[in-house]
Amino acid sequence: MAALTLAVVDPSRSRDFYADGFGWVPVFEAPGIIFYQMNGFVLGLYRLPDFEEDANLEVGSGPGGVAMAHNVATENEVVPLMERLLKAGGRLLRPADAPPHGGFRGYVADPDGHAWEIAWNPAWPIDGEGHVTFGA
Amino acid sequence: MAALTLAVVDPSRSRDFYADGFGWVPVFEAPGIIFYQMNGFVLGLYRLPDFEEDANLEVGSGPGGVAMAHNVATENEVVPLMERLLKAGGRLLRPADAPPHGGFRGYVADPDGHAWEIAWNPAWPIDGEGHVTFGA
Repeated sequence: MAALTLAVVDPSRSRDFYADGFGWVPVFEAPGIIFYQMNGFVLGLYRLPDFEEDANLEVGSGPGGVAMAHNVATENEVVPLMERLLKAGGRLLRPADAPPHGGFRGYVADPDGHAWEIAWNPAWPIDGEGHVTFGA
Repeated sequence: MAALTLAVVDPSRSRDFYADGFGWVPVFEAPGIIFYQMNGFVLGLYRLPDFEEDANLEVGSGPGGVAMAHNVATENEVVPLMERLLKAGGRLLRPADAPPHGGFRGYVADPDGHAWEIAWNPAWPIDGEGHVTFGA
């Protein structure tokens, strides 16, 4: 996957959320579009009507069936990051707890409702460049 | 981002689509969940009710404002891959054409409506491991 694009109503609101919440700095900004260099792919924030026109797709009401996961290195980092995201304008979907498959995680939606799981998952190694490898 | 999870109604239908369309082989399968090792992150297909329960999120009607892009190496590969995806059970969202920002691309939805842009984008280099770097 080369890119993941999220439709957003207000790109500058989203930029503030991703800066204040995750500390991310865009690699590119133009009116209506923002790009971040991620671990092996590019994340784009695209103004909703432009997104819909580009994909020829009308975005439905309510959230779509898509969730992103951001993994942290230790269990103790999950709640503070979730709190930072909430303070930055996120909305709590699920308080952090331990899922049946192990680890520890909660969910926060970004200002447009895009779901982020904040997780500690010791089974999935993360290398120095942030690349994540599946582990069972 | 450690993982991208797509809610799917029928995981085996989705597995067939991703195998026949993209040629992807799961790294893990269990009832209701399938994982793929991607370029720097993990792609998960998760049965819809389990997805909703895990994220404490009710998926809305219609597609969400999220699109994935899969980049190919040459312009001539865009249409054949789109045709393969359509034959594998995808739905055409937008026939391939040249967008104002350059390159060549079209959009196909997977069996659950998740949008995939199939793109030739010569400005974004892809290394031997499939990691994609933003370029303007």
